[in-house]
Amino acid sequence: MPEDVKPQTGGDHPLELDGDQFADLTQRALVHLSRYIDSLPSTPAMDCEGGVEAARSFASPMPEHGDATDSVLDELFSRAIPKGFNTASPGYLAYIPGGGILASAVADFIACAVNRYVGVWQASPGLAQIESTVIRWFCELVGYPSSSGGYLSTGGSMANWTALVTARCHLLSDDFLRGTLYVSDQGHHSLEKAALLAGFPRGNIRVIPTDSELRLSVPHLRDAIGKDRKNDYEPFLVLANGGTTNTGAVDDISSICEVARDEGLWTHVDAAYGGFFLLTERGRKALSGIEGADSVTLDPHKGLFLPYGTGCLLVRDLRHLRAAHSVHGEYMPDMQVEQDLVDFCEISPELSRDARGLRLWFPFRLYGAGAFRKSLEEKLDLARLAYAQLIKIEELEVLAPPELSIVAFRLKDKGGSLEVENQRNEDFLCRINDSRRVFLTGTKLDGRFTLRICVLSFRTHEDRMLECFAAIQAALGE
Amino acid sequence: MPEDVKPQTGGDHPLELDGDQFADLTQRALVHLSRYIDSLPSTPAMDCEGGVEAARSFASPMPEHGDATDSVLDELFSRAIPKGFNTASPGYLAYIPGGGILASAVADFIACAVNRYVGVWQASPGLAQIESTVIRWFCELVGYPSSSGGYLSTGGSMANWTALVTARCHLLSDDFLRGTLYVSDQGHHSLEKAALLAGFPRGNIRVIPTDSELRLSVPHLRDAIGKDRKNDYEPFLVLANGGTTNTGAVDDISSICEVARDEGLWTHVDAAYGGFFLLTERGRKALSGIEGADSVTLDPHKGLFLPYGTGCLLVRDLRHLRAAHSVHGEYMPDMQVEQDLVDFCEISPELSRDARGLRLWFPFRLYGAGAFRKSLEEKLDLARLAYAQLIKIEELEVLAPPELSIVAFRLKDKGGSLEVENQRNEDFLCRINDSRRVFLTGTKLDGRFTLRICVLSFRTHEDRMLECFAAIQAALGE
Repeated sequence: MPEDVKPQTGGDHPLELDGDQFADLTQRALVHLSRYIDSLPSTPAMDCEGGVEAARSFASPMPEHGDATDSVLDELFSRAIPKGFNTASPGYLAYIPGGGILASAVADFIACAVNRYVGVWQASPGLAQIESTVIRWFCELVGYPSSSGGYLSTGGSMANWTALVTARCHLLSDDFLRGTLYVSDQGHHSLEKAALLAGFPRGNIRVIPTDSELRLSVPHLRDAIGKDRKNDYEPFLVLANGGTTNTGAVDDISSICEVARDEGLWTHVDAAYGGFFLLTERGRKALSGIEGADSVTLDPHKGLFLPYGTGCLLVRDLRHLRAAHSVHGEYMPDMQVEQDLVDFCEISPELSRDARGLRLWFPFRLYGAGAFRKSLEEKLDLARLAYAQLIKIEELEVLAPPELSIVAFRLKDKGGSLEVENQRNEDFLCRINDSRRVFLTGTKLDGRFTLRICVLSFRTHEDRMLECFAAIQAALGE
Repeated sequence: MPEDVKPQTGGDHPLELDGDQFADLTQRALVHLSRYIDSLPSTPAMDCEGGVEAARSFASPMPEHGDATDSVLDELFSRAIPKGFNTASPGYLAYIPGGGILASAVADFIACAVNRYVGVWQASPGLAQIESTVIRWFCELVGYPSSSGGYLSTGGSMANWTALVTARCHLLSDDFLRGTLYVSDQGHHSLEKAALLAGFPRGNIRVIPTDSELRLSVPHLRDAIGKDRKNDYEPFLVLANGGTTNTGAVDDISSICEVARDEGLWTHVDAAYGGFFLLTERGRKALSGIEGADSVTLDPHKGLFLPYGTGCLLVRDLRHLRAAHSVHGEYMPDMQVEQDLVDFCEISPELSRDARGLRLWFPFRLYGAGAFRKSLEEKLDLARLAYAQLIKIEELEVLAPPELSIVAFRLKDKGGSLEVENQRNEDFLCRINDSRRVFLTGTKLDGRFTLRICVLSFRTHEDRMLECFAAIQAALGE
């Protein structure tokens, strides 16, 4: 590697690298990155100590002059990146993992460097089509007809919000403030947030109770809709869970769609966590009926292991997305009229944005869907292994067998107050995480603190799961 | 470079590259990218021929098996990437350029590969702080107090929408359907779209006429607000332009803020195009008064030349963003209570999303603000040069001298119908673009087709502007 002579700060146009300078900068970053990746098996799954101090050292004023590349990279890799939750670690079993496959990082690197614009089809027919192609794959995976479509968002929150706005535009008038929507008490909070952002009063969100398996209670849903109609509300949307964040529970999508159809409501399935298990037999069984929904949120940065920043919304009838999003300016290029060519700005909330298709298309082309399917099967197996191990432990209460790849459990009650029992479980979680080999997180179910193991990193294999069980055993013994 | 032996399709875990495999994949992409970058001076600024066929060749089903890396890369670089608008070209003077600085592509590559999560501060204190630091730089650039804040969005559309939702939550009740907002006839269509997405009836958007310099007419604004109050509407938001997309006109922000303050309205400045000229003396003069606005949209992928996918919303009082966006789930980690530490999911619409701070922080650290300032000064100079050249041409009518970096012009009227004159100008534009050395686009002003030169790529220098003038001259002669 050549000496670092700050070529970037010299010259008339310091921002303008040629091919060699660009390659040099990339090589310097790559040295750090390759080392980082090879260190993942041995680095902690979580390291929050000293995070505040490390972070505050980056609170510096806008620099007028540049610095040497290697010293900036050193600063970044030594002080900024290692702190916090190691989302790339094989031991990351917290929240909803993903891990970040590296072929997507390379694809995004290509997209950024060539900087083509995909918001309008004409501006980059090839890259826009690549994004459309990926959407078509996903529509077929869900079982949607050819009239379906969708777009890639930055994540589940934006996809859920777009679904909500689309349903609002399709089913309600301008005067929509009596519109009510229905979500189970296990629904992700992004659904509530989406409703608020879309202009609905908080009081219009009906939280439907769940059954013993934490699935939305369909009889309660029917009752709530009926009651709202009597009170002159306008029920318009049911939000079904395609794998809850708490426990991975999948609602009875078929029955929900049936109720919604009977009542003239839109069904949206938030399958941000669970959707890509459709690549597996077990996932298809769990999510059966999803093809009957009007829209579906998927999160490739969860179930396809992509780096953060790629969500997806699919709608059964693309025209509804267009009706809610098509607005024009005189300075804009012509939009497509051909049926098979889509201008993304016409069917989604953004105009200028990154090219998100490549980071999906590229790894699928390199590895094939088979590689993703195999990894997802492994996650389902590992969650079942976790369940089998945990039910053997006397001190633990383990919730239902995992429907997807989340296992929830807690210490058996010792008869203390809710507060005391919750604190015992929180302490238990801390002791497990103190191992640094795994990072689990908790949630509250009916007010009771509950630990979760969510297996969804492509880097998590049986060896790390065994370390997880050992950490749990050790934490029990303390 | 080693032979391409498809290492990625073998092994138990094909998605899981080690450091060497990752470096190898990156090297292969880099060969194409370096060649691409070095070709930019000679490749067409726009190449739409055969785009449909090239694109449709990518409409293939989800592959079950992988393909060799080099053949996938060849396909991408030969068929997908070259077609359409060459947004990275020095001759790209269309719409609003940017170009895509390569240090940001490298920064994003790092962010994707380490895949840390920045939506919650605790998850990645360093990278979240880097994003906060960049926001602080921008707040200071705008002249905002320490109580200000903001977040990085994917672009101007989402930033404008967030501003609108925030103003709605702050000033209107749940029953907000009588709320009216004010935008000039030169406002970007993303403002109208934002209002519709946020739930406002189309009829509540008041389009205010502009003066001879295409700036929002402040007297008309006052009148419109007064009239709405009389009709029991609730005026709540003025949308001022900090550089219009059509001509770069900057509204009289100070006067607009004064009216808004008098009337109790929120002022939002859409400075997606013009905002970063604040780094220059001329820009600060043009945008004077911007510090009085309640919120400002900036687009780093325009005025800081970043690759597509980075916008920014700043608000003078961060509490308003929080009030509109803070929603919780039981499975979430603790949020920060320290004043200086921000959880982005608390103040913005997204939860999981890409880490956008690094792609700004990294080039500022490598090159310093001075490099950006210098390049922006150059763009202002080049636009003035264009104006000086174009007014010398007898056949042309040139609109006002550029306030920022856009020059609008058209063929002088020959007394034909509007349709005929517009067609003459459209043909003229096509002849200019036929040179392939530059790509200009048009708009309509008062129904009249008008050509625009927008200088905002970091790769555009005087030599290419001279080629632009030559192309214009040649197109006149035909």
